[in-house]
Amino acid sequence: MTERGKRIFSKLRDEIDAIVLINGDEPNVDMAFSYAAGTEAGLFEGCVTVIYPDGKVRMLSSQLEETSARRSKAEVTVFPGVEDKMSMMKDSFGHASRIGINGHGLTYANLMDIKKAAPKAEIIDVSHAIAASRLVKDQDEIERLRKACQIATQVGEELPSIVKEGMPEYEAAAEVGYRMMKLGASSTSFTTNASWGKNSAEPHHEPDDSRLKKGDMVLFDYGALYNKYGSDVTRTFVFGRAEKWQKEIYDIVLRSQMEAIDAVHAGAEAKEIDAVARRIIDDTQYKGRFIHSLGHGIGLSVHDGGRFSPMSEIVLEENMVMTVEPGIYLPGKGGVRIEDDIRVTKKGCEVLTTAKKEFMVI
Amino acid sequence: MTERGKRIFSKLRDEIDAIVLINGDEPNVDMAFSYAAGTEAGLFEGCVTVIYPDGKVRMLSSQLEETSARRSKAEVTVFPGVEDKMSMMKDSFGHASRIGINGHGLTYANLMDIKKAAPKAEIIDVSHAIAASRLVKDQDEIERLRKACQIATQVGEELPSIVKEGMPEYEAAAEVGYRMMKLGASSTSFTTNASWGKNSAEPHHEPDDSRLKKGDMVLFDYGALYNKYGSDVTRTFVFGRAEKWQKEIYDIVLRSQMEAIDAVHAGAEAKEIDAVARRIIDDTQYKGRFIHSLGHGIGLSVHDGGRFSPMSEIVLEENMVMTVEPGIYLPGKGGVRIEDDIRVTKKGCEVLTTAKKEFMVI
Repeated sequence: MTERGKRIFSKLRDEIDAIVLINGDEPNVDMAFSYAAGTEAGLFEGCVTVIYPDGKVRMLSSQLEETSARRSKAEVTVFPGVEDKMSMMKDSFGHASRIGINGHGLTYANLMDIKKAAPKAEIIDVSHAIAASRLVKDQDEIERLRKACQIATQVGEELPSIVKEGMPEYEAAAEVGYRMMKLGASSTSFTTNASWGKNSAEPHHEPDDSRLKKGDMVLFDYGALYNKYGSDVTRTFVFGRAEKWQKEIYDIVLRSQMEAIDAVHAGAEAKEIDAVARRIIDDTQYKGRFIHSLGHGIGLSVHDGGRFSPMSEIVLEENMVMTVEPGIYLPGKGGVRIEDDIRVTKKGCEVLTTAKKEFMVI
Repeated sequence: MTERGKRIFSKLRDEIDAIVLINGDEPNVDMAFSYAAGTEAGLFEGCVTVIYPDGKVRMLSSQLEETSARRSKAEVTVFPGVEDKMSMMKDSFGHASRIGINGHGLTYANLMDIKKAAPKAEIIDVSHAIAASRLVKDQDEIERLRKACQIATQVGEELPSIVKEGMPEYEAAAEVGYRMMKLGASSTSFTTNASWGKNSAEPHHEPDDSRLKKGDMVLFDYGALYNKYGSDVTRTFVFGRAEKWQKEIYDIVLRSQMEAIDAVHAGAEAKEIDAVARRIIDDTQYKGRFIHSLGHGIGLSVHDGGRFSPMSEIVLEENMVMTVEPGIYLPGKGGVRIEDDIRVTKKGCEVLTTAKKEFMVI
């Protein structure tokens, strides 16, 4: 993984002697650890990865994770016990006077361990450099994401045939996960959201025992995890019969999404893409009902750094992979969101998730 | 959630003015946040919970999570934007001179936010008090765990009927998750492990495309998540026909597990329970083949603090909920692990997962 190490160092704003990444215990794992070490499986709780200025990556692995560690792209040393780990940490970066850490992935407890191993070192948050490196995907990452997107697309086409009148949300969510795993996903990339009716007005609804009835909005937000990389797709339908407002907000959201996708290209500002989508919604009576940002990077995390949002400072680069997902939410009635994953190209973008998205009464 | 707040404060070693918990972005969420605020759903990325010495719990929630926040047991204030959040943080704990934090759940970036809101405060890691409080489950937690265990038990009874000759591991894992979700689980509590043959000798194996063949060990390690609480069960079978060594190691592991369960009661030392199980295995020719600790607490995390291990310092208390899971692993051949979830009672324990566990050729 020398290349990823080099990439991260090339994005630094400060002089750094070593970057130290420590995984916490589940769920407090640092995805940057997997990224830098190039792991394909394993949890690596309490393990350490050190990146040096020449790009070299060294991993200190527990015995439990040795098999997965040896399959990674890092130079691996196994520590038999906790005392050995501390002395290996001292060996690996105890000499450093300026240590970079990942502020969004490192826990306080592991920060204390770094300070113990290198008590005199200055600690500098280099999460901006790690995030910047992760934002632009390399070939290996694109291949994994492509597969995760293919699986989600195939299941996306099957969504209309999954739902039945009276079906509880959790059962439909179960079906979506099952189908993705039968297609080779290691799991869902996040808890599948199946929302009926007014629940669809809540962007982060978790499936419950609400039962599907005629006239309900049907919203699925779901994704597949493939070799640690996850896709993220949303499709919305109307069940049984549609009222006018449902088709109306659907059409606005779809237009918003398609125009935003059309506006994407390397060199464009992320906030401008958000503005394209937001303007279309805010020019209607549903102004203010698009209550989140337009999209986010995907990769090892579902929110992999980078956003299409009014505050985003990002300028798009080739091979950034992002979601585009406008929505309109009417509390007590229902909501529509349409979400696809795209890869930024020189002149536009490649839409990686291609399940049908015209308005459908199912 | 005043009671949980009070419990945490009662376990402190230091004088503390306020405990501040901030959720990072997925996957760096702090389960202690959900615990203190008593949430049932929602992600709460970037949200803040403050616990005061009188046990009162205040949550600063983003707009995105408002609905879930209002359903929690905390006193909720919603911040419209990031600037408002900082000023609300100052209001909530800016006056504190000693702030407690959860060292295993707080990221470096969020630590910096706490320091910004309360620049003069001393930061003290109180994760020991949070862990100690979480170890002993209250009635609400026990009810959720009981349901998570019931779901896993029901699917446990169905395991023999799931597998077929030639089936790949990932397909069997998909089936297990699907069945639990159809029974009301919001998801699996961790990635389902289905291991055939020699893969079962690797405790953290991840399901791959290995196909089931006669004579294989069949090991399932899986659990259901119900209202954020997870069960954790392992069952092992032999497929088609069993050799003598398979029945032999199975019987040793089963005896080890049952005797350990029999030894559990409030007041017993956790390391002594581990020793009961380990002694039975180490008295056979498989000495040294039980390569992990006997069990761990379950709850909001699959590893919810507390262990049955030779190093554990824990004395069991009523309503601790733990796994008991001895195993024997023969590299290149296969392994057996049998795992149940138990609730410690005054005079013994209640076994919460009750799927059949006699030796079975399926």
